[in-house]
Amino acid sequence: MSELDQLSINAIRFLALDTVEKAKCGHPGAPLGCAPIAYLLFHKLMKHNPSDSKWADRDRFVLSNGHASALLYSVLHLSGYKVGIEDLQNFRQWHSITPGHPEYGDTDGVEVTTGPLGQGFAMAAGMAVAEKHLAAKFNKPELEIVDHYTYVLCGDGDLMEGVSHEAASLAGTLGLGKLIVLYDDNLISLDGPTDLSYTEDVKGRFEAYHWQVLRVEDGNDLAAIEAAIVAAKAETTKPTLIAVRTVIGYGSPKAGTNKVHGEAMGPVDTAKTKENLGWPVDKFFYVPEEAAKNWATVAERGKKQYQEWTALWEKYKKSNPELAAEFELGQANKIAAGWEASVPVFLTEKPVATRNAGQQVMNAIAGKVPSLFGGAADLTASTKTIFKDSPSFHIDPAGRNVFFGVREFGMCAMVNGMAVHGGLIPFGSTFFVFSECCRPAMRLVALMKVQSLFIFTHDSIGLGEDGPTHQPVEQLMSLRAIPGLTDFHPADANETAAAWKLALERKTPSFMALSRQDLPVLDAVKYKVAEGVAKGGYVLEDGTDVVLVSAGSEVDLAMKSAVALKAEGISARVVSMPSWKIFEEQSAEYKSSVLPKSTPKLAIEAGATQGWWKYADEVIGIDRFGASAPGPIVMDKLGFNVANVVAHVKKLIKK
Amino acid sequence: MSELDQLSINAIRFLALDTVEKAKCGHPGAPLGCAPIAYLLFHKLMKHNPSDSKWADRDRFVLSNGHASALLYSVLHLSGYKVGIEDLQNFRQWHSITPGHPEYGDTDGVEVTTGPLGQGFAMAAGMAVAEKHLAAKFNKPELEIVDHYTYVLCGDGDLMEGVSHEAASLAGTLGLGKLIVLYDDNLISLDGPTDLSYTEDVKGRFEAYHWQVLRVEDGNDLAAIEAAIVAAKAETTKPTLIAVRTVIGYGSPKAGTNKVHGEAMGPVDTAKTKENLGWPVDKFFYVPEEAAKNWATVAERGKKQYQEWTALWEKYKKSNPELAAEFELGQANKIAAGWEASVPVFLTEKPVATRNAGQQVMNAIAGKVPSLFGGAADLTASTKTIFKDSPSFHIDPAGRNVFFGVREFGMCAMVNGMAVHGGLIPFGSTFFVFSECCRPAMRLVALMKVQSLFIFTHDSIGLGEDGPTHQPVEQLMSLRAIPGLTDFHPADANETAAAWKLALERKTPSFMALSRQDLPVLDAVKYKVAEGVAKGGYVLEDGTDVVLVSAGSEVDLAMKSAVALKAEGISARVVSMPSWKIFEEQSAEYKSSVLPKSTPKLAIEAGATQGWWKYADEVIGIDRFGASAPGPIVMDKLGFNVANVVAHVKKLIKK
Repeated sequence: MSELDQLSINAIRFLALDTVEKAKCGHPGAPLGCAPIAYLLFHKLMKHNPSDSKWADRDRFVLSNGHASALLYSVLHLSGYKVGIEDLQNFRQWHSITPGHPEYGDTDGVEVTTGPLGQGFAMAAGMAVAEKHLAAKFNKPELEIVDHYTYVLCGDGDLMEGVSHEAASLAGTLGLGKLIVLYDDNLISLDGPTDLSYTEDVKGRFEAYHWQVLRVEDGNDLAAIEAAIVAAKAETTKPTLIAVRTVIGYGSPKAGTNKVHGEAMGPVDTAKTKENLGWPVDKFFYVPEEAAKNWATVAERGKKQYQEWTALWEKYKKSNPELAAEFELGQANKIAAGWEASVPVFLTEKPVATRNAGQQVMNAIAGKVPSLFGGAADLTASTKTIFKDSPSFHIDPAGRNVFFGVREFGMCAMVNGMAVHGGLIPFGSTFFVFSECCRPAMRLVALMKVQSLFIFTHDSIGLGEDGPTHQPVEQLMSLRAIPGLTDFHPADANETAAAWKLALERKTPSFMALSRQDLPVLDAVKYKVAEGVAKGGYVLEDGTDVVLVSAGSEVDLAMKSAVALKAEGISARVVSMPSWKIFEEQSAEYKSSVLPKSTPKLAIEAGATQGWWKYADEVIGIDRFGASAPGPIVMDKLGFNVANVVAHVKKLIKK
Repeated sequence: MSELDQLSINAIRFLALDTVEKAKCGHPGAPLGCAPIAYLLFHKLMKHNPSDSKWADRDRFVLSNGHASALLYSVLHLSGYKVGIEDLQNFRQWHSITPGHPEYGDTDGVEVTTGPLGQGFAMAAGMAVAEKHLAAKFNKPELEIVDHYTYVLCGDGDLMEGVSHEAASLAGTLGLGKLIVLYDDNLISLDGPTDLSYTEDVKGRFEAYHWQVLRVEDGNDLAAIEAAIVAAKAETTKPTLIAVRTVIGYGSPKAGTNKVHGEAMGPVDTAKTKENLGWPVDKFFYVPEEAAKNWATVAERGKKQYQEWTALWEKYKKSNPELAAEFELGQANKIAAGWEASVPVFLTEKPVATRNAGQQVMNAIAGKVPSLFGGAADLTASTKTIFKDSPSFHIDPAGRNVFFGVREFGMCAMVNGMAVHGGLIPFGSTFFVFSECCRPAMRLVALMKVQSLFIFTHDSIGLGEDGPTHQPVEQLMSLRAIPGLTDFHPADANETAAAWKLALERKTPSFMALSRQDLPVLDAVKYKVAEGVAKGGYVLEDGTDVVLVSAGSEVDLAMKSAVALKAEGISARVVSMPSWKIFEEQSAEYKSSVLPKSTPKLAIEAGATQGWWKYADEVIGIDRFGASAPGPIVMDKLGFNVANVVAHVKKLIKK
């Protein structure tokens, strides 16, 4: 490589090293080893515009090994994103834009939150799905307004994680030709040499997934890395993994060992590293003028690429005004006005399982919400989350149905990748109990505050015979504890419709827990269901002696119990609380108007009692696992019957 | 195959089919396709004794595709386990021993709970680790008292799940030569043909993991399946995967389609299936006499194998009395009396991070609790869960340290497999926030009620700079919601020691959340820490105006706040509540003696507030994500300081 290249690469290395050193913590090893890759991508190969980090058709870069954040921040700074030297100097400090791991929304140019290993990799696969779908949907001959790559830098840890298997296997099946993964194959993990626990043949593994796998023997060989990336782009039907043999902590005294992975190396080793690589030992956060000049070409190059795309886009708008409008709405994460009118209202005549109600809503709004896109983890027939009029994305990339396979975590991480990519409102679906596998992705998207939807069905022991491994008990409560994740546990078909509407409007991540079994339908007008759900909790029937507060299928039990109580001279208010997060957003006045302080309150929900004590004095819930038997029997045996509610109320109001 | 073989195989098929049919739900497809495999294993190849299903040296059989439970129950019945025809007829009914998915503890001969796909596979890898370790530790020349195989039957779904990747990759690295997986390669998943979402080259993938991979082209070819299993046994340094091409729903009108996967086929198709395979259409739960006689040989064979082993064991006991005593204790899941004396007591002189306290306890008791075995998910240096005097299991199978790699879920599932295997008290360890990945396994072991230990460190935002992706917030509360899982959030080193003692004594699964940062040590004698922790919650300092109830690092804050409050004339009681589950087990009297109804109560814990409302009137907690900054700063900014506690108390007691 040229001297200028070397200087520009070392500028990354020492910015990152000084960044970690000043914070006295962080990860210096990967930045030193991977700086050439980052240089090549950001300086030469990637299509990006540092002055508009949200440009729709930019190449995406995902740092899946998020602990190498100092590398990313340094490269963003050098490329001209809004990351200043003072930000690098504030690395890992309160309210800085340079947190310990990259956080979506905190930092200009950071595409996605990473740190929990494997998820960046899987989210990148989701981004590549989004690109492929949007390209198939919007591109016209000579007017390819969607045409970008998703690059990933990842480490051993990413590939050890199960989610990498799920995403890689599906990415191979889906032929995501514009997904390019650079694997930092440095032979070291936190505990020591990778062969302590990780000896698999990565090439063989990824070829088995139908990926193209390339190898670069020397992570400092820019030409070889570039040639591999060119070959990756040339293979349009398969994703590519490029295994780059790097040296962790390159240039430092402890290079090639786990000692240089996860802590600041201290002033002595820092100085030695600078000395070893011919860098001035006495300069900190130093960018030589020539390197700075060289890095400045990124912004120019980006601007030019952006202008070319803008010219294309102007032509596109003229020749395809409707599609262009749809594209713009999608990019702004908006839905064309009036779509709400397509949300169905369910009649009270016959009971409807809320999973079926969900299916009806989804299909009713499908035409008006064209950005809605997703599928299930091999449970389409059970969760009912399929667009009836659209093909499988796998067969036709313009199709809106994704068959994710039995890959719950991978599905949700990919859905998150689609959400941060932009242009889509993505969803994933499975049995509610398997939300357990989804949680790490649900937490990550809650942290990112982007709009992933998770449609879960078979919401309680009410599913019956499949038994305790399949019966959710603690899931509702556990997910309600995740900050920023909106919960929906609708009581009936109309609450489900309202939940769908809110889920689309709120622009934040949310999940729904829907029933397998039929549930009576609440009168949408009489009970003002849509308005009620929009407040999270609301009064269905009024009463003065006791409040029965409930959610999901148990709202019906509460209604029936209120009738039975009335016959015994007890006046019960029935409150449905389909969304705790939304209820908590209401004013103190509203909340206490629904749940008056002075009235005894009994909560009823077929799930863990844990959180209900905030709202109720007594709880009928489930603090054990379920059992295999027909749903109504399990419900009855575990206390979800009118007699038990009545008995609890009598005891409660005696207090 | 012989006619007798065919008859005996069809006996499985039609018992299973009638079982599903009578319940009117379940999964007929896999039993019809896999009956020959099950026959070969249980009737001929496996070492097992139906009259002692807990025999230590039996071969293990794991039905990873647990939805095929009717297959397993039918084979257990035919083999002579305590599963009667009436039990098959009670399939999926309340309190039957034949639940929808196999449940450990419910049914004689069921080795492990399965249903959530992939986990059976991973637990089997754990069983094979246990076997290999115990064999290395106990066997003597000519006295190989531990020498058994672990067989797995799994489907596509198991192999799509990420946990199969984690476990398979590690199993290959560890060279688990006695792990034999039969893969029901039927080309069908719930949503339809597997190529909808699953096209990977399974052979290539597993060879990349360093497995032996064999293929059987016809799932009805007993000789070919047997030859493959013989070859699997002959390869002693690698696990083996045998891909058996079967036909889902073999013999039925909808054979080879997803229509026969997951629901009862109805009387018409059932009759047609019987007709197709030459079975009397008018007989139900029918076992022809010859088939019954043939199946009866299993019990005889088993008894003989058992007697041979018993003879060996008697010799072993004589020549190796000490090891034999240790083996027996391990099998009974007991620890030699007096071990508790080795649990250290920490002095108050200097603060200790509870992760370091945990390390000291582990190593102090290591000699007295030889069955303790485990490791971390590539975070040994951080979680400190390493036996200093023992080699890596990978290098020396008698070693007690397992390096699991970055595979949290796989680690925990493997730990569960070790726990159900018997002979070990296994543990796994990682950062607390990554318990999110462990949850599906933690739920499953809670359901099984066996003793897996999960040692989590970096328990709160107190970990500091790594930021929100690494800072637990909602994890404590979410895990406390899992039924049957004991929680420990110790306040200091002495509570940590007490928690370790209880975790070993309780014989049920538990987790610990330990701190990264140093915490002051409570006086073990003055505060009767061990007795207190054994009750889940206890009074540290008494007071009358307000109760400060807390756990983990915030107990120290509560203590300091009580001092500050005293200076202002407010008498505060301080309660430490290291284990909610154990506290809930105490009498109502004890609980209200600790948390008196009439005294205002303030809870303080650096985590989600959700569950605290059961115990307190007000909560200082965290219902948002953390932030990247030094730990003490994050703590202070989010309200964990004396001034904020005092302010809250003043407001509270004014109420």
